[in-house]
Amino acid sequence: MVIGGDAGGMAAVSQVHKGRPDLDIVVLERGRWTSYSACGIPYVVGGDVDSIERLVARRPQDFRDRDGVDVRMRHEAMAIDLDARQVEVRAHELGRTFRLGFDDLLVATGGRSARPPLPGIDGPLVHGVQNLEDATHLLQHAETVGARRVTVVGGGYIGLEMAEAFVKRGATVTLVEGGPEVMGTLDPDMGALVRAALTRVGVDVRVGVSVTGFDPDRVITGADSIPTDLVVLGIGVAPNSELAGAAGLELGVRNAIVVDRRQRASVPGVWAAGDCCQSWHLVARRWVHLALGTVANKQSRVAGINIGGGYAAFPGVVGTAVSKICSTEVARTGLSESEAALVGFEVAAVTILSSTRAGYFPGAGPITVKMVAERGTGRLLGAQIVGVEGAAKRVDVLAVAVTAGMDVQQVLDLDLSYAPPFSPVWDPVLVAARELRKLV
Amino acid sequence: MVIGGDAGGMAAVSQVHKGRPDLDIVVLERGRWTSYSACGIPYVVGGDVDSIERLVARRPQDFRDRDGVDVRMRHEAMAIDLDARQVEVRAHELGRTFRLGFDDLLVATGGRSARPPLPGIDGPLVHGVQNLEDATHLLQHAETVGARRVTVVGGGYIGLEMAEAFVKRGATVTLVEGGPEVMGTLDPDMGALVRAALTRVGVDVRVGVSVTGFDPDRVITGADSIPTDLVVLGIGVAPNSELAGAAGLELGVRNAIVVDRRQRASVPGVWAAGDCCQSWHLVARRWVHLALGTVANKQSRVAGINIGGGYAAFPGVVGTAVSKICSTEVARTGLSESEAALVGFEVAAVTILSSTRAGYFPGAGPITVKMVAERGTGRLLGAQIVGVEGAAKRVDVLAVAVTAGMDVQQVLDLDLSYAPPFSPVWDPVLVAARELRKLV
Repeated sequence: MVIGGDAGGMAAVSQVHKGRPDLDIVVLERGRWTSYSACGIPYVVGGDVDSIERLVARRPQDFRDRDGVDVRMRHEAMAIDLDARQVEVRAHELGRTFRLGFDDLLVATGGRSARPPLPGIDGPLVHGVQNLEDATHLLQHAETVGARRVTVVGGGYIGLEMAEAFVKRGATVTLVEGGPEVMGTLDPDMGALVRAALTRVGVDVRVGVSVTGFDPDRVITGADSIPTDLVVLGIGVAPNSELAGAAGLELGVRNAIVVDRRQRASVPGVWAAGDCCQSWHLVARRWVHLALGTVANKQSRVAGINIGGGYAAFPGVVGTAVSKICSTEVARTGLSESEAALVGFEVAAVTILSSTRAGYFPGAGPITVKMVAERGTGRLLGAQIVGVEGAAKRVDVLAVAVTAGMDVQQVLDLDLSYAPPFSPVWDPVLVAARELRKLV
Repeated sequence: MVIGGDAGGMAAVSQVHKGRPDLDIVVLERGRWTSYSACGIPYVVGGDVDSIERLVARRPQDFRDRDGVDVRMRHEAMAIDLDARQVEVRAHELGRTFRLGFDDLLVATGGRSARPPLPGIDGPLVHGVQNLEDATHLLQHAETVGARRVTVVGGGYIGLEMAEAFVKRGATVTLVEGGPEVMGTLDPDMGALVRAALTRVGVDVRVGVSVTGFDPDRVITGADSIPTDLVVLGIGVAPNSELAGAAGLELGVRNAIVVDRRQRASVPGVWAAGDCCQSWHLVARRWVHLALGTVANKQSRVAGINIGGGYAAFPGVVGTAVSKICSTEVARTGLSESEAALVGFEVAAVTILSSTRAGYFPGAGPITVKMVAERGTGRLLGAQIVGVEGAAKRVDVLAVAVTAGMDVQQVLDLDLSYAPPFSPVWDPVLVAARELRKLV
């Protein structure tokens, strides 16, 4: 049995079926969609993608046809009885509740937009954007009530992408971030570059401002109140782990479900994958909660192989992420300077400004690379990139280097590709390594 | 003393000056330019870049001002006397020859377009494109004699880029390649995709056709003759190593100058860097001759640090290269399937077709990734990419993985960045690894 029909659940299904075609697979999905790209929601809101349906990679019938899976839509798991090996299921459209048994259970209940307990946060004004139900409500609100004035609470990836999306829809957008800078997964010096990009497209960015509550037509902050037609929450993602926790499965960091490297939860025959569970951070060497589609897909695939009788492990993450805010690309991998210090590293860091292409080549534009290494060993710990088109995907080069445990000299020695339309002869990541080499 | 004022020589200069400011540095350059991007020549010919001067990164005076270097232009080294530690210098503009002594000598004489001994190849019709002198002659020819009909001999990177450049100038372009497919550094199945791109923009591509000679107005092939106003050679790059060889320095693969990991040539106090010398291939574990600006810059920097009394090594290359032919991007790293077999590996290989962005995202287009691994160990040996904009720079991810000695499972586990404008949730390189994992 699989609880949850998005990436964390469905990537497992075909692996299970491949390994053990004799198993009956039942998927319970409380919503109306399977296997969709929640990351695409801002692009539907902004009009780049013309409908929510486009974000659906595979429909329930696809799974039924291909892998013979019994996919039950609008079926919600209400409780897990680990002793009886049963799940209590509410069939919303049938209006009845019943129990279903399982041998193996994959919990893939996903995550939700974090909702701090502020007055009015559950009012109709306030929207999360973590799944397609959220997106549907938000779009309905924008189209019926209107969204001339939009306030985004939280300056992470989702908040920033939603701010841009509403700018594209012609709204007046205010972004409120409680921390000292937007994009808290970057160091503040790099976050400031992203804030500048937002300001350039007309977003009213307010950092260091805390939201204290919501009135029916405004957002209340510590400083003043902001008249608004619609609020988007971009404060973070919380794991949907209440069901698992109530059943007695162990919860860990930020209440995410505890799993081992094979995605086994704390009870035999029970597995978890995706936004509801934790991930091992290879550099920080601690468990983290990271709600990302890539991670969900990989963890689910690993769980599926294991459930199907094979052997697979999910070694962990290095915290790679990328986003595009207007024409500015933003990426990060590994640990930021502040994260590294927090985990106990003594670090050296450099920030360099280079060019995305050979300086003389049309379309060349600025790219800023910040690189962080351990002092003494010179080991690469992380990197952040902000720049124009073509800048951000370079972060993957450094994600591999971080994973491989390379030091900055080894990064400097990398045989990276070069041609004038793609890079200067010293690629920006090599320039950063060359400068950082002097400091470690 | 440095012989050669381009990347192989000049990247060393500031390192030498930094390490040993007491040293007198003399640079002999037989041409009219220092530190230029020969890789940019096709873009000047094609009109993307408006003049040859734009390709010059640093002029002689820059080196004089910054590092106090005695840069002598139009001064050609005619002979090296290793016993007397002297170089015989021809000062072309002064019309005289003299001898200059040295303590350390860096040979950075570069490379030239290979010219097989065919009848008529030294005629005025036939142009190389290896340095700015070549480019000047070629542009003069095109502007005075005209270049309505252009024949490119050789289907490697330079040949293909020049073919595109002349298409942009409005010429009728024929490309003749003696081998079975263009882009011989790729496997033929991937090369065929590049040939299709060339054909789409109107280049008459003839593979498996050998050029046997040149008449004053036509190219003679084994099959017929091609009327032409201008010929571009793109057969490959030969090291300018005659000077070094005549002096008694050891020559190796393809007559490139033998160097060790610190860029020391076979005689103490003599160094070599750039297109004139060989490089260690980390996967093939043999010396190769690879004429690339990135390699020249790195080798020269290493030589400079060592000459300046420091310690630096150039560990080697994995053969990464990238190019853009019209709107098609092409890249490769490591060993191709055929190269791997030649070196003694038993390999497994897959070719997958994916998308550069999330399928629903505007601008998403096809990307083909071929990936080669060692059977048994699963070690990643190389990869090739052909695709639309945004495809090719991904090769760097695999260049790092090849360098780190990763196997395909480790590649599959990589935490690469994902957002809809940049990639599907499974990046194409991960899709390739996932498929290849099944075969090793």
